[in-house]
Amino acid sequence: MQHNLQDTISVLTRTPAVLDALLRGLPETWTLQNEGEKTWSAFDIVGHLIHGERTDWMPRTKRILQFGETKAFEPFDRHAQERESQGKTLAQLLDEFARVRAENLNELRALNLEPEDLARRGLHPALGVVTLSQLLATWAVHDLTHLHQISRVMAHQYREGVGPWSAYLGVLHCAGHSAP
Amino acid sequence: MQHNLQDTISVLTRTPAVLDALLRGLPETWTLQNEGEKTWSAFDIVGHLIHGERTDWMPRTKRILQFGETKAFEPFDRHAQERESQGKTLAQLLDEFARVRAENLNELRALNLEPEDLARRGLHPALGVVTLSQLLATWAVHDLTHLHQISRVMAHQYREGVGPWSAYLGVLHCAGHSAP
Repeated sequence: MQHNLQDTISVLTRTPAVLDALLRGLPETWTLQNEGEKTWSAFDIVGHLIHGERTDWMPRTKRILQFGETKAFEPFDRHAQERESQGKTLAQLLDEFARVRAENLNELRALNLEPEDLARRGLHPALGVVTLSQLLATWAVHDLTHLHQISRVMAHQYREGVGPWSAYLGVLHCAGHSAP
Repeated sequence: MQHNLQDTISVLTRTPAVLDALLRGLPETWTLQNEGEKTWSAFDIVGHLIHGERTDWMPRTKRILQFGETKAFEPFDRHAQERESQGKTLAQLLDEFARVRAENLNELRALNLEPEDLARRGLHPALGVVTLSQLLATWAVHDLTHLHQISRVMAHQYREGVGPWSAYLGVLHCAGHSAP
């Protein structure tokens, strides 16, 4: 299955509601715990997604359309949420994510991208030449990688609680591959 | 973190809405595709969750309370959804899952389980002696293992589409550990 813009938008549109249904009002034992030192909690992950909406996906889309391969993307700050989420509640972050995602999707739709636009090339500071199609596919899979991570981080909290069933529960055998 | 019944219920309550937000109305390229031969699509997974509601979690809870270790659980049929989901739409399965889950949670709450109940022991046909606490913790982590799986199955559909970004997307490096 190749990248299809409408299929991508169908995933991107749903993610805020998915995270809302999963996390809003959930006890902090689920949302503030992580998988150990230097790992992320669900709270951290939502902050990371917000930072991506602000600095990654649409700014990079516009850079490709404006500069092609002549100007590399800004590197992404994977620690931004440590500052930006400070003093906020998870409910506030969920609201903020829904708002910035909706704004970005409005902006994306307004670009009326055609197949020839999707084939345009840009320059990633580490990966080299990439296409707009790959960037947009990655935006959707990035949502899925963090949904995958949140389910794993939550499951980790019951690693002991499930007793011998841990043998059958795949999520407890996932080594965690969401970095960098 | 040890098993806590209210924390478990807080996850179990949310899962139908999470799957609804993620899957309802999504193009079939996301919901009917799997990861290859003998693997499951999102459609298959929702059917599997329904079968668990009918035959696994509450029937086993009641067997522990009634028979303790003297009568093993019925083995779980991992292929039941191949029959039971036939001819149904994903929207019907999502409705059905929400209904049976809500019924089961009503029944669970009505049991008014006390800590000494949670310590009661039952007999799993393969794993041997387990506690009611472990069974209920497993119910929640089983939801999370399949959310983890659905996000991975969906991401798999864009494995080619993301191009060089696949190196950064953890979900594409998850070997899949949800069986058996």
